[in-house]
Amino acid sequence: MTQASFVFMKAKLATMAAGSGYGLVADGALAVADGRIRWVGAAADLPAQYASWPRVDLGGRLVTPALVDCHTHLVHGGSRAREFELRLEGATYQEIAAAGGGIVSTVKATRLASEDELVASALLRLDALLAEGAGTVEVKSGYGLDTQNEAKMLRAARRLAQARKVRIRTTFLGAHALPPEFAGRPDDYIDYLCTDALPAAQRAGLVDAVDAFCEGIAFSTAQVAKVFTAARELGLPVKLHAEQLSNLGGSALAASFGALSTDHLEYLDEAGIAAMAKAGTVAVLLPGAFYFLRETKYPPLEGLRAAGVAIALATDCNPGTSPLTSLLLTLNMACTLFRMTPVEALAGVTLNGAKALGLGHDLGSLEAGKLADLAVWDVQDPAELCYRMGLNPLHARYFEGEVV
Amino acid sequence: MTQASFVFMKAKLATMAAGSGYGLVADGALAVADGRIRWVGAAADLPAQYASWPRVDLGGRLVTPALVDCHTHLVHGGSRAREFELRLEGATYQEIAAAGGGIVSTVKATRLASEDELVASALLRLDALLAEGAGTVEVKSGYGLDTQNEAKMLRAARRLAQARKVRIRTTFLGAHALPPEFAGRPDDYIDYLCTDALPAAQRAGLVDAVDAFCEGIAFSTAQVAKVFTAARELGLPVKLHAEQLSNLGGSALAASFGALSTDHLEYLDEAGIAAMAKAGTVAVLLPGAFYFLRETKYPPLEGLRAAGVAIALATDCNPGTSPLTSLLLTLNMACTLFRMTPVEALAGVTLNGAKALGLGHDLGSLEAGKLADLAVWDVQDPAELCYRMGLNPLHARYFEGEVV
Ligand SMILES: [Zn+2]
Ligand SMILES: [Zn+2]
Repeated sequence: MTQASFVFMKAKLATMAAGSGYGLVADGALAVADGRIRWVGAAADLPAQYASWPRVDLGGRLVTPALVDCHTHLVHGGSRAREFELRLEGATYQEIAAAGGGIVSTVKATRLASEDELVASALLRLDALLAEGAGTVEVKSGYGLDTQNEAKMLRAARRLAQARKVRIRTTFLGAHALPPEFAGRPDDYIDYLCTDALPAAQRAGLVDAVDAFCEGIAFSTAQVAKVFTAARELGLPVKLHAEQLSNLGGSALAASFGALSTDHLEYLDEAGIAAMAKAGTVAVLLPGAFYFLRETKYPPLEGLRAAGVAIALATDCNPGTSPLTSLLLTLNMACTLFRMTPVEALAGVTLNGAKALGLGHDLGSLEAGKLADLAVWDVQDPAELCYRMGLNPLHARYFEGEVV
Repeated sequence: MTQASFVFMKAKLATMAAGSGYGLVADGALAVADGRIRWVGAAADLPAQYASWPRVDLGGRLVTPALVDCHTHLVHGGSRAREFELRLEGATYQEIAAAGGGIVSTVKATRLASEDELVASALLRLDALLAEGAGTVEVKSGYGLDTQNEAKMLRAARRLAQARKVRIRTTFLGAHALPPEFAGRPDDYIDYLCTDALPAAQRAGLVDAVDAFCEGIAFSTAQVAKVFTAARELGLPVKLHAEQLSNLGGSALAASFGALSTDHLEYLDEAGIAAMAKAGTVAVLLPGAFYFLRETKYPPLEGLRAAGVAIALATDCNPGTSPLTSLLLTLNMACTLFRMTPVEALAGVTLNGAKALGLGHDLGSLEAGKLADLAVWDVQDPAELCYRMGLNPLHARYFEGEVV
């Protein structure tokens, strides 16, 4: 038994184990050693072998798995606050473009930023997530749009995990938008990504998964299929921004590649749902973007529930359509806007968030054997985490068994 | 010159002075002595008399007036998180009522709570507001609904200002809902408020203003007029929850009593706007309640603008319809949902928020002679305060010239 062993006592547990709702244990105990959960259950049932371990009395506080933000664009240059303001002041699309607005402005700012600058600005956003109990954060590239700058973004993402106690999963999103150098030549850009930018990033050990944006304003299913084929050849799992503004069948395509997740999904149809259910692809809903864009088309929650598709939630933290750095607010938006139940919402930022990153075996629920990424909250009722807006009841966060 | 004298240098100022938009001063200076602002302007113009004062170098950070939350129900017992959850799980109105839901449950919990308990729970919410730069917070009674418990709520509100560096303004809201003891006898309850509960609270020095809820589910204009007449006789200014769910003409009535503000206003009509403009009554919009209730009827922003009515924003922090404790999120909601511009939104939680409390002469803008309630932000562009969701860039807060 090392120093890193302890037992939580007087803990209310929301284990979030699959199929158990919150998996509430009113007077729970949870034993941790060497960064992993060793035992979870009712305090009355604590095995004798843990009785002598150092105890942490939680005074009845709620313990959940640390939160997982499975879809972010946390690393990027610049801010779009002025564009937000111009739009509200009635500026036309042309005026905003002339003032340097739109995704082009983020690409420009990201290319101009040094890796250090990208790390520094991302840390401000990361710290907001961690302060609310996040332990794992996915970070996408996608504003570099060339070999050098996509790699720079991904290196910056990796460095976040050196600067803070957090697990970062990187996603290569070269097929996010068409860079100006390839204007009018999207297929050439896709070829460039598949033969140059993606393999280079992969060789440098910078890629945990590959994503693309499948939409009329971005890339077609045929183009996405090329990217996914390249990913498959490199042994990388895939995800997809799909069915956000229209239904191109991106989710079904992604499912046919065994995608970890498809994300957004306001326009997802029954065929897409069926394909996702069959492939075990997670549906990642992004209520922050829905809210910020004042979207009126709702993701097909009933269909996803009926098909048994796992539903995750994420901030989509990005400068253009979801400048959101709060998973607690994401929970509230999922409940208030999408009418998800609090237990569904909490599963969306714990177990299902972990599944969307291919980490469901190791994270996302309080179960023996999993990593001891834990959030301790100054609340009694887990619904409090979804109900309030702007109150952060985090008491303590543990990363692999270590309090941070 | 006392210890409490200093000059901010290298400050970007958003003075929010009336009629100047943000009133931006790019390289500003601001001199403070004895809790008040002595001089504000461009650093290059700083008068010689302040040149020797201690300096605080802000490194280009933005300074605004400390924020004002002019409409809250911060003091209350209980939580409605479980009711929120039941509703999302599909419980009927009857089932929720049977489980102790609705405003009745908050009245019950508030009556059962001790004054100390009310202070303790309100401090959690107050701390969230202060952490984002609030300096003045209005707190209403309205869940006690009898002489003793309304006074208890207001005493708890006053005590918040002893526990923290904050200015609390109390509002007597006995006419919030009909208590069970007066079921079927609303006029008797109004008489009781006017002759007993309100005068008693006023005699105890607990009342800064008087409010009521004018709505089909609450009180009629005739009943509100009685409460306002009693307030007038006691020399107290009035405010009104009006036109939230229907148009009863409450705002026009309130304006005829010279109301400081009318609040909510989704159903406000042109006649109401005209009456408010004439009386100088502030329109307090509450986007948190609009969001949480998924309201689809928008307050008449164009009409208010055209008539020159001052528009304030507030959290409406309350357990039933707006469990919101973030003025920054309120700013974002006002912009995103109501399409207010960032400069309008920021005026809503500074100068116009102060006006809604009758404090416009002393607070809400950076002008010589006003109290030195200041917020210093780690941003360059004031639009950042409205654009982001869940990021708190507060660097420092000053209350009457003292850093807190
Ligand atoms: Zn995204
Ligand atoms: Zn209210």
